[in-house]
Amino acid sequence: MHITIWNEYIHEQNNPAVVAVYPRGIHQALAKLLAEPLEKHHGLKAEGLTITTATLEEADHGLTDEVIKKTDVLLWWGHQAHDRVEERIVDRVHRAVMQGMGLIVLHSGHLSKIFTRLMGTTCNLRWREADDRELIWTVHPAHPISRGVPQPLELAAHEMYGEFFDIPVPDELIFVSAFSGGEIFRSGCCFFRGKGRIFYFSPGHETYPVYHQPAIGRILANAACWAYQPERSGIITGHSPNVEKDWWR
Amino acid sequence: MHITIWNEYIHEQNNPAVVAVYPRGIHQALAKLLAEPLEKHHGLKAEGLTITTATLEEADHGLTDEVIKKTDVLLWWGHQAHDRVEERIVDRVHRAVMQGMGLIVLHSGHLSKIFTRLMGTTCNLRWREADDRELIWTVHPAHPISRGVPQPLELAAHEMYGEFFDIPVPDELIFVSAFSGGEIFRSGCCFFRGKGRIFYFSPGHETYPVYHQPAIGRILANAACWAYQPERSGIITGHSPNVEKDWWR
Amino acid sequence: MHITIWNEYIHEQNNPAVVAVYPRGIHQALAKLLAEPLEKHHGLKAEGLTITTATLEEADHGLTDEVIKKTDVLLWWGHQAHDRVEERIVDRVHRAVMQGMGLIVLHSGHLSKIFTRLMGTTCNLRWREADDRELIWTVHPAHPISRGVPQPLELAAHEMYGEFFDIPVPDELIFVSAFSGGEIFRSGCCFFRGKGRIFYFSPGHETYPVYHQPAIGRILANAACWAYQPERSGIITGHSPNVEKDWWR
Amino acid sequence: MHITIWNEYIHEQNNPAVVAVYPRGIHQALAKLLAEPLEKHHGLKAEGLTITTATLEEADHGLTDEVIKKTDVLLWWGHQAHDRVEERIVDRVHRAVMQGMGLIVLHSGHLSKIFTRLMGTTCNLRWREADDRELIWTVHPAHPISRGVPQPLELAAHEMYGEFFDIPVPDELIFVSAFSGGEIFRSGCCFFRGKGRIFYFSPGHETYPVYHQPAIGRILANAACWAYQPERSGIITGHSPNVEKDWWR
Repeated sequence: MHITIWNEYIHEQNNPAVVAVYPRGIHQALAKLLAEPLEKHHGLKAEGLTITTATLEEADHGLTDEVIKKTDVLLWWGHQAHDRVEERIVDRVHRAVMQGMGLIVLHSGHLSKIFTRLMGTTCNLRWREADDRELIWTVHPAHPISRGVPQPLELAAHEMYGEFFDIPVPDELIFVSAFSGGEIFRSGCCFFRGKGRIFYFSPGHETYPVYHQPAIGRILANAACWAYQPERSGIITGHSPNVEKDWWR
Repeated sequence: MHITIWNEYIHEQNNPAVVAVYPRGIHQALAKLLAEPLEKHHGLKAEGLTITTATLEEADHGLTDEVIKKTDVLLWWGHQAHDRVEERIVDRVHRAVMQGMGLIVLHSGHLSKIFTRLMGTTCNLRWREADDRELIWTVHPAHPISRGVPQPLELAAHEMYGEFFDIPVPDELIFVSAFSGGEIFRSGCCFFRGKGRIFYFSPGHETYPVYHQPAIGRILANAACWAYQPERSGIITGHSPNVEKDWWR
Repeated sequence: MHITIWNEYIHEQNNPAVVAVYPRGIHQALAKLLAEPLEKHHGLKAEGLTITTATLEEADHGLTDEVIKKTDVLLWWGHQAHDRVEERIVDRVHRAVMQGMGLIVLHSGHLSKIFTRLMGTTCNLRWREADDRELIWTVHPAHPISRGVPQPLELAAHEMYGEFFDIPVPDELIFVSAFSGGEIFRSGCCFFRGKGRIFYFSPGHETYPVYHQPAIGRILANAACWAYQPERSGIITGHSPNVEKDWWR
Repeated sequence: MHITIWNEYIHEQNNPAVVAVYPRGIHQALAKLLAEPLEKHHGLKAEGLTITTATLEEADHGLTDEVIKKTDVLLWWGHQAHDRVEERIVDRVHRAVMQGMGLIVLHSGHLSKIFTRLMGTTCNLRWREADDRELIWTVHPAHPISRGVPQPLELAAHEMYGEFFDIPVPDELIFVSAFSGGEIFRSGCCFFRGKGRIFYFSPGHETYPVYHQPAIGRILANAACWAYQPERSGIITGHSPNVEKDWWR
């Protein structure tokens, strides 16, 4: 399995409060966070797993044709520069999802171009930065993404994301968060689009050490394995084919 | 539209704390609560609407064949006497739901025979009576049941119901509640079973005046109209028919 | 209720085979088809119902701000000129759906800009024009859109649309069609997006008299009533609001 | 992974036409059919996989407490003796599903006690034994159960099962079959119940050699791996617990 972690990588270079939490960038923290549970709980050792990163400032934002072709699961963290992501790269990622690449969209990625294009809705939500305690509740214990996750999982302090979250009805709703201010949020949502599997997971504001918490790593490792498909498929053609009778014989 | 409100009607005769809240019984409170929003928001006046009640102690628990036949939507409130409901009456209600009768199951009805039979799961949950504040959040604003409901709807104090709530994945999830103790609960859930439409709504513990709150009436009136079908159908036959080729001609 | 029927209106002016079936255009045929079941089965008489039409060649394609504002349910029939629909009009329709306008997308509208934007997928499918018999089977008898529809509903000859149909998993799957060539197709699909309700219905190729068949009118009238919401809502704001604690009080 | 294949095992002892197709019983045919794709496509070799069988006539129908405890995925084939399955064994299987045991219900098992109890509906359908050709179409190419399955998968002749199939809306609809007589059927359906995962798959009438077809084995192997969970969980308690505030600390 090859995982590519995409990060906008701006806050961690400009904002001392974020540098303090993620000195090497959110992408590096995520790479570190994923490795252990992927080995321990999913049996993926170094020889069967590669994790690389890509950032906004690289050529093609680090998401060249070659990178996308070899990526099985793409993680996406972006926030203040959604508009600077080029349409042709969004097209490339979208096409790969249609063909079966897994996609995990994190936190403020809810307003990224790739996520809103895949959802077809505004993806707006309510938010507040006020150190709310967040409790993440599993509402789908039969789903592989909730395996081994504490009930509830507590984030001592986090940005609040609240409903109504303007997404399509999730194909599978895994987690719902409660904030100490009283709001709730559908914080872990699965979507099938084309041949691809998409997981949106809201925790991970840049000023809180969420991606250093092992239980978060467990969820993301579970999600990567759920989203992973061994091969891409031609089932989603680039057009609507005109077929003869008995074309399948 | 004919609505039948079924109530166990025990607490209101034995427990002074409940008598204080519902002196004429929860069924009468519900009948009163429903009438206004059904007229005001759904245009159902006296000539087009009848609401009657039925209780455990009546013959056939008040749910004779005749009553069930004319009932379009049945509300169900039960708690401590689930076991005293006769199987043959549960069979009758189940059959009617399969044929298109609407069913609204309230609060502790999550463990009633009719609900657990329709769900096929244990329907267990966590609970606490500790005057938690409950905030009911709409997560499905496009659904008719959430029409006109405040975001959020607040119950100043209520029994806590918490996840995991062991129901099948709801066909439509309308409301999620947050409790001041930190729990969340899928408090408004739609299910399609056979030709019938079912709504489970968790508010309504007997010691809190929930069924005197107009916004709760609005939800229940919306739900009754959503669950209502003008005719029952033979599409659900009592067996699996052996059919000839072109049987539909 | 105000219904607007949008039609590309090109085939009916250029192709004699289509003129023969729809001399006044598909939009006029649809307007006629809808009126009777809306009155007979939904009680909508002239005083409570207006149906108007709009076509590609009109200013703003007939979908001015004013028209969209008053439209409760928009029907969409397009085929060969999807690319000629201006983005700003698509934006306008999309925004209205987010706020609660109903949308019924017909047949080849599966590749329209508005539908693919709302879906986020390619919406591709297989097709064949070979006079296949189409049988439309109800798989959701509890849903208001299938009310009164024959099981199955037969189209003596129609264009074949076949799987895989690259849409998101429908929120509610109502009809599945079988073609005499052996293909199946999810032909009646409901989606909730933002505050809006969307119904995709595949029958209606321009060379077959599908929109003269009363049972098709029954389905479309049911769908219009299902998609209709009496008011649009500000619940879907145009941005993600930053909220104070207890903002709802 | 330990798979237990339960078979009523009556037809294969009484009906020469069935003996000709399944001389050692459907259970033995299924065991053979599963082994190859589980090894080839899922890497499950003899040391990591055991497959055993159980039949109606054995003590506890072969489903003792011990057997159920060690079973990860249970396959169920039954037809004419559903009524002879003891309630206490159904209770045992139901409890195991609630705790995470996978269950694959085959063909006429749609009317088995365990399936109808889990579904809560009648599970009735239409049927015809007339050598219809069945084409199995994938409508969910992103799902692990459809991986590697031909589009469409053809059964040259099979019993027809037709809609309306009175099950709850499947949590995931994978396959829809088309029969040469014109009917369609939701032939591959996933359900989550409690912590368990359930797959219903309609092919497999006893007089047709369906369980000798490798593509069917591929589907069942995919389904077994999808339904498999490495551990059972106490998340579904046997009752509804009364909890203190902050019980999770």
